[in-house]
Formats: sequence, C-alpha cells, structure tokens
Amino acid sequence: MRPQEIIEKKRDGNALTRIEIQSFIDGVCNESWADYQISALVMAMFIRGLSPAEASDLTRAMLYSGEVLDFSDIDAPKADKHSTGGVGDKCSLIIAPLAAACGLAVPMISGRGLGHTGGTLDKLESIAGYNVNLTTEEFRSTLEKCGFAMAGQTGEIAPADKKLYALRDATATVPYIPLIVASIMSKKLAEGLDALVLDVKTGAGAFMQRLDDSRELAQQLVSTGRDFGVKVEAVISDMDGPLGTWVGNAFEVYECIEILRGNIVGSARNTLDLSLELTARMLVLAGVSSDIAAAQKLANSKLSSGEALQKMCRNIEIQGGDPSVCDDPESLLSNGLMKFDVTSVTDGFVESIDSLAIGNAIVALGGGRTKAEDTIDFAVGFSTDVCVGDEVRAGDSLGVVHCRSESQFESIREFSTSFFHVGSSRPVENVPLIREIVS
Amino acid sequence: MRPQEIIEKKRDGNALTRIEIQSFIDGVCNESWADYQISALVMAMFIRGLSPAEASDLTRAMLYSGEVLDFSDIDAPKADKHSTGGVGDKCSLIIAPLAAACGLAVPMISGRGLGHTGGTLDKLESIAGYNVNLTTEEFRSTLEKCGFAMAGQTGEIAPADKKLYALRDATATVPYIPLIVASIMSKKLAEGLDALVLDVKTGAGAFMQRLDDSRELAQQLVSTGRDFGVKVEAVISDMDGPLGTWVGNAFEVYECIEILRGNIVGSARNTLDLSLELTARMLVLAGVSSDIAAAQKLANSKLSSGEALQKMCRNIEIQGGDPSVCDDPESLLSNGLMKFDVTSVTDGFVESIDSLAIGNAIVALGGGRTKAEDTIDFAVGFSTDVCVGDEVRAGDSLGVVHCRSESQFESIREFSTSFFHVGSSRPVENVPLIREIVS
Repeated sequence: MRPQEIIEKKRDGNALTRIEIQSFIDGVCNESWADYQISALVMAMFIRGLSPAEASDLTRAMLYSGEVLDFSDIDAPKADKHSTGGVGDKCSLIIAPLAAACGLAVPMISGRGLGHTGGTLDKLESIAGYNVNLTTEEFRSTLEKCGFAMAGQTGEIAPADKKLYALRDATATVPYIPLIVASIMSKKLAEGLDALVLDVKTGAGAFMQRLDDSRELAQQLVSTGRDFGVKVEAVISDMDGPLGTWVGNAFEVYECIEILRGNIVGSARNTLDLSLELTARMLVLAGVSSDIAAAQKLANSKLSSGEALQKMCRNIEIQGGDPSVCDDPESLLSNGLMKFDVTSVTDGFVESIDSLAIGNAIVALGGGRTKAEDTIDFAVGFSTDVCVGDEVRAGDSLGVVHCRSESQFESIREFSTSFFHVGSSRPVENVPLIREIVS
Repeated sequence: MRPQEIIEKKRDGNALTRIEIQSFIDGVCNESWADYQISALVMAMFIRGLSPAEASDLTRAMLYSGEVLDFSDIDAPKADKHSTGGVGDKCSLIIAPLAAACGLAVPMISGRGLGHTGGTLDKLESIAGYNVNLTTEEFRSTLEKCGFAMAGQTGEIAPADKKLYALRDATATVPYIPLIVASIMSKKLAEGLDALVLDVKTGAGAFMQRLDDSRELAQQLVSTGRDFGVKVEAVISDMDGPLGTWVGNAFEVYECIEILRGNIVGSARNTLDLSLELTARMLVLAGVSSDIAAAQKLANSKLSSGEALQKMCRNIEIQGGDPSVCDDPESLLSNGLMKFDVTSVTDGFVESIDSLAIGNAIVALGGGRTKAEDTIDFAVGFSTDVCVGDEVRAGDSLGVVHCRSESQFESIREFSTSFFHVGSSRPVENVPLIREIVS
C-alpha cells in the first residue's frame, strides 16, 4: 500500500481500515514512510478526525510496535498512575513509593519535560547519580526489589510513539484527543498493568484548559484502557495554580521527600492530598483495598510509619542515586542561588494564578526545555504558598523566584508581573483540587 | 515566526497573512522549515483551503523566491503558452517555432513528464544532443537568436515551487487548485511575459477530469495572471483521447516535425488545429494581430512558407541538437522496434478512449516516469488514428503499441484491452477539441 493512497483517503475525510493504520505504523517504524508523509497524514487525521474504531486501531498498532512488558510472574498487583502534566506536579515521586509500601508493584515509565510542564525523569536526575535509563532487565529487577521502578521509555517501548510525538510537536498536531490517547495508552499499556489511574489536569496551567476538553480526554483514556482489558479510572484535577509550594526540578524532589518525612508545610498539603487520592484509587482498582476510605487509611499509615520513605530510599539506592537525600533533603538544594520576591502592586484578592506563565518562566531560567535536546539547570525554581482567593496587600510577597543571578531575574522580571492577578473582587468560592472522577 | 504558529493557524481554518505566507516560503528556501513542517502546512492548506488573497500571496512569494527574468530589452512582445498536461500533447513543439516565426519572442520554461502525462523536456531530449539545461544567459541568447528558447526550470527560477512540488507529489496534496495555480504561475510569471495562453485540459486523460474543475482552474489561472499585470487567456481543450496520432517522446517530435514540414496525416490534424488556435490567441493577446482570424491567417502563412520549420531547425542547432531531423524526421525513430496491434473484440462504435490508461502503459514500457529520478526510453510509444464515434468491426486494429520486445508487450497486453471502449451505441455527438475559452 503506497503512503499516498492512505494519506489521500484520510485527506478526503474517509475512515482508515485497521490494515491501513497498521501499514502506516509499520512504515513509521521501518522508515518506509518519510517524515513528511507521516506529518501530512497526522495533519489530515487532526483536521478530518479519527473515529473511535480508528483511534483504537492506532493505539493497538502503536502499542505492538514495540515490546509489551509482562510482569505476571510478580505476585503483587501491577498498577501505575499517569498525569497529563502540570506545573509543580510532582505526585509521581510520592505515589510510587507509597503505593509500593501499600503492596502494589508500580512499573512507572515516565517522560521528560517539554515546554511549561516538567517531567518526572528530569526531577529524578536532580538526585546525584540517579539513573533513569534502565534496560528492561534492570527495570524488572528494580521492581522486584523495592516494589517500584522509574525509568524513561526505552527504544523498545512503543517506538512508533517516540517518532510520532517528535513530529507532532514540530508540526502543531499535539492537541488532538485521539492522538493524545494513542500516545499515552500505547506506552502505559506496554507496562503490563492490572490497573491504571489517570490524572487529567484542567485549567490555566494544564495542557487542556477547558474542563469539557479534559473530561473528553479522560473519557477516551478510560474507554481505551478498558478495550485493552486494563482497569482504568481518571481523576480530573485542578491546575489553575501550581501544585504544592515548589516548582523546579530539585525543589520538587525536595518537597516530596519532606512530605514522605512527614514535614508538610503550606501548599505542600495539596501535593499530599492529590497523591493520597490517586494512590487510594490505585489500591481500590487493583483490589488491595475494598473502598477509598480503607485505601486512604492504609496509605496514611504507610506514610506515618515511614515505610513509604524507606521505599523511596531503597529505590534511589538501587537506581544508582545518593540515598542520603532522604535523611538530608536540604542537600538537594544548590548553594548560592539568589531569591527575588514577586510582590503585589495593589491591595485585593488573588483572582487567578497563571501557572502557564510560571512554567514558562522556569523554562526561561534554564529549568526546562523548549527543544528535546536542551540541557536543564535542575537548581532554579519558584515557590509560593499563595492560593486563589487569598487577600493580599500592596507590597506583599506573592512568591519567590530562585535563580542564578540578578540579570537572569531581570530577563523575566516583567513577565513575572503576570504570575498573579490581584483584583478587587473576592472570588466566590475556591475551585476544589479534584474536579471530577471519570470511571 | 515559529513554523508551528503558522501551521496551527491554518490547521484551525484561519487565513494566513501575507507576512506569514512569506515567512513560510522563506523557510522553504532557506531550509529553516523542515520538510515535515512544510508538508503539514500544505496538508492543512489543502483541507482548510486558501482564500483568493492567500493564493495570490502564495504565488507572489513563490515567484519572488527566485530570479524573475527581464527581457524588456528584446523588442518583440514576449508570450508563452502553458498546458496542464495531457497524453500526446506535443503542441509546444509547434507553437514555439510558429509563434517565433510570426514575430513573438517565446521564452518557454518547461517540465519533465511525471506519471501518465509527458513533458516537453523529455520529448526534446529525444533529439540527439539537444540541451535543455541552459543558463539564464544561454536562454536569453537563444531567445535573441531565433525567437524562442526551450529549457528546464533552473534552480534560480521559483526554487520554492521545485521543493514544494516534490513534497506535494509524495504527500497526496497535488490536486488542489490554488496550489496548482501558485505552482504554474510562479514559474510562468518568472519568464518576464507580456502575454500567456493557458491550455487547460479536461477529460479522462487530463489532470482535471471534470469540466467544472477545469473551468475553475482556468478562471483562477487567468485572474492570478491579471493580478500580476500579464495578459492571460485560457483555452479548455478536450483530453478524452490522446492528442494527435502519436504518444511517446521521439514519436511526438516526429509528428511535430512532419506537421511543420506540411505533412499532416490522420489525427495529426488535431495537433495542428489546437496549435494554431493557441498560437493565434498568443498573437492577439500580445498585440501582433488584431483578431483571431487575422492571427490564424498569419500563422498558416508562416507554416506553409516553411519559416516555422526553419525556426525549429535553427533552435535545434543553437541548443546543441542535430538539425538534420528537420530534413529527415524518420531518423528520430529507432530501428528494431516491434509493433503490436490493439484490436477490437466486437463490432460497434468507439464510445470512449482511456488516454490515462494509454499514458500509464507508455510509463510501464519505460517511456515515462513514476519517480522523478527514473530514466526514460524515448523510443517506445503508441499510435492511433481512431476517434470517439468511429464505427469499427471485430478484429480491426484500433491502435499500435511500439515497444522493444514481445515480453514487454505481454506485460501490458491485458491492460491494453482497456484503451478503447467499443459499444453498441453511436455517440450522440463528437466532443469538440476546444471546449471553452476563459478570458
């Protein structure tokens, strides 16, 4: 089948057959399709749309384009969570050790940050020596030894997605739900899971800013997972402000270890609350707990007993990192950073927080990427405990930029005035952190 | 301006500004746009559409992506014709010398064949030694010396079109009228013309098979030319059967030289009629003749006086070819070709001729290309003097395949049964060769 014939069919708005979609994904992997042919078809898919059957065929073809892991010899139920990405969203670093402490096996394959949202792999690499590039065998052995493993997508897991995602990022074809679903699920279904909890972000700092879109994405993710025989549930959570106190790679690991140590200060409460909710849903879905209340109780007990912290410590050790950060989280933070307050120019109420702007500022400071090949300064970041609805006075500090030099701050100073919108009206009510559950 | 922003805008159905279109074409030429970004935008243009203003901006940007020739120092009016391509369409080889003999300067930049339609450059190269790769200076000096020059698009003429066309061909984005118009006109407007006559083919063997589409293309071509201050007229001509007697590179040159020598046999009459019509329109449009009748009379006189043949002979000499073909056109034909009749299996009337199938058969015999890098056997071809409406008997020869071997014919034998459709009903009326004039 010639690429042109398949492209033409979708160009004219016709549905592709399973064989045509398979031929496309085969061509992506064996390079018989040129990049410009792939991107032309993806644009036609974006504009003309994919039916549920086509989307399912695409997910299947992408999933089986690579290795599908099989952990059936591990007794513990296998479960994972995946987030669509937010600013300051560091829950994976709490959920993985906590769920493992509660008896789950968590084979977590994560990504790097791109654009305003961070990536779990980058955060982990701010721990000296931590290795996220595991072979399949290393991944399995880590999972067996401490109940969870955290690594990047190897070339063997859904290679078609790796290629397609890079092209979509360069051709403005990322934000189309069936393509997002195929991308996420082809990787997650390759983890050999029994259960999967999805954290679909919504709001200003999220990939999907409108609740309707987030709900649609959540529904398609859940229904696709179900088609493949995995128990899936989605939590739609708020991303109108950054999650927790800290944004920035090393700072976020610091916040998580402090939480695992029981030191919960300010907005870190939100990070913990969301992590507990997601962990509890994993436990129920995987059959470890009978209901959410029991699961929350179990998770809380593993937190306060220190078992979750021990799991984290053990994992860092196995994956080559320096486990002393669990005893001394301050050691994660770089010396000699400079602090600059972002202050309110007026009395009033915090009406909104632009976490997209905050995320982009971190990128500008070198703490994130605009291109996949960019290197990262793990140290820089931003902190705030201000929430939407808080009353503030002119001159109050709303948050702190942590960076390398005054000139670096100058480069984002004007931009930083847009982080918080302070107005005269008291917001009617706070938006809850968890908006909806889709199951 | 990032490519992604421009792609996104068109992806969502918005009109692009002149600056955005310029930025795109700049990126095509300086390679700051990757091929996959170009093809994604072109697919979005294809599906979402281009407004007349966008199409005009695209043509302008593509035109000025390269050199625009200036022949204002040549006194004679500059005129050219361009055909959208048909099977057996060899008129350029008659029109160029004939128009030159009538006093026009004809700076004809042509293309190669791709798919079922032939290309003027390939036909010319079947004349031993003929050089179609002229520098701008050689092109100008040839034009000055004999009133016409025939060459390929150099890297300096509309380089953006060269790149775009190759990508469109590989990504199923060729058949969209505004893109076709920009492709044709960016090259033709670079010729520094006063007048341009377009031969838009319609019917089974044409690129546009429906008259409505051909009319739409003709109208957009004419209006674009006018926007750029060139006098343009389009003739919509029939391509339900091949034009003239012969199809195949060397055979078509042979037919043209015989016509220029006054030897007009069988369907070669159609080749001459269409050539005269197009030449006459060029003469009127360029102000040499006051009306079509006077122009036809002038052209006929230059044919019968032998001046058109002399122009052809002189051009071949200047462009490095062997001018003896003008005295001995038979020398163009290869020795040792084999002939195979395509016969009628039934009594009846020729209801239709599938010139697309005939064109594709020539490609299969090696006389055309499926990929730009294919080499060509100039010698092979097909001949017929049968027209739609002719009454035939079972066993009658409808046409002759001229090829290298019996096995070569065997490879297309079954296919050749579809060249002619003979049925029991007498066609109501013959379709005229010239369907409409758009001016």
